[in-house]
Amino acid sequence: MMVIIMDNLIDISIIGYIAGTLTTFASLPQLIKSLKEKDMSNISLTFVITFTTGLSLWLVYGILRNDYPIIVFNILSLMFWIPITYLKIKDTLKKRKLS
Amino acid sequence: MMVIIMDNLIDISIIGYIAGTLTTFASLPQLIKSLKEKDMSNISLTFVITFTTGLSLWLVYGILRNDYPIIVFNILSLMFWIPITYLKIKDTLKKRKLS
Repeated sequence: MMVIIMDNLIDISIIGYIAGTLTTFASLPQLIKSLKEKDMSNISLTFVITFTTGLSLWLVYGILRNDYPIIVFNILSLMFWIPITYLKIKDTLKKRKLS
Repeated sequence: MMVIIMDNLIDISIIGYIAGTLTTFASLPQLIKSLKEKDMSNISLTFVITFTTGLSLWLVYGILRNDYPIIVFNILSLMFWIPITYLKIKDTLKKRKLS
């Protein structure tokens, strides 16, 4: 899908790829830190499950609309958020056993 | 745009609206807390500027693709992230003056 911006014919998807790069990689340092330190204390279980479910539905939405930027960046995000969700659930269950 | 899922004809946008609701409202408690307490200490300036720029480009992308779920939820997110960006920049400038 092409559009003319300031006399330049550009593919709209480029805007989607730049947007996705910014929003996905903005949170990367924090995500990598949490994964490395396995420190899930500052992330709530409700947030993690809600957010990861939302990302999965955005992925379904992107596939159904054949919208590549949405597909690419939700897959990338899920590659981080699924392990974080797993660690958070494991962490929560461990704490419940101890209490 | 319609699709048949488990013999039901549904509008794909519904999936986008559910996805957007989950990802946007998942982070709401944290955003409201930061705005109320005006405590920007746990948010980095780089993250805020990168993320908010990304949201703005997703909004442009949604408008160009005439994709309502993307438009709606990026506007909603920006309604939180723009004030947070403003507060974070103000906070950072104040600290630089003091040092």
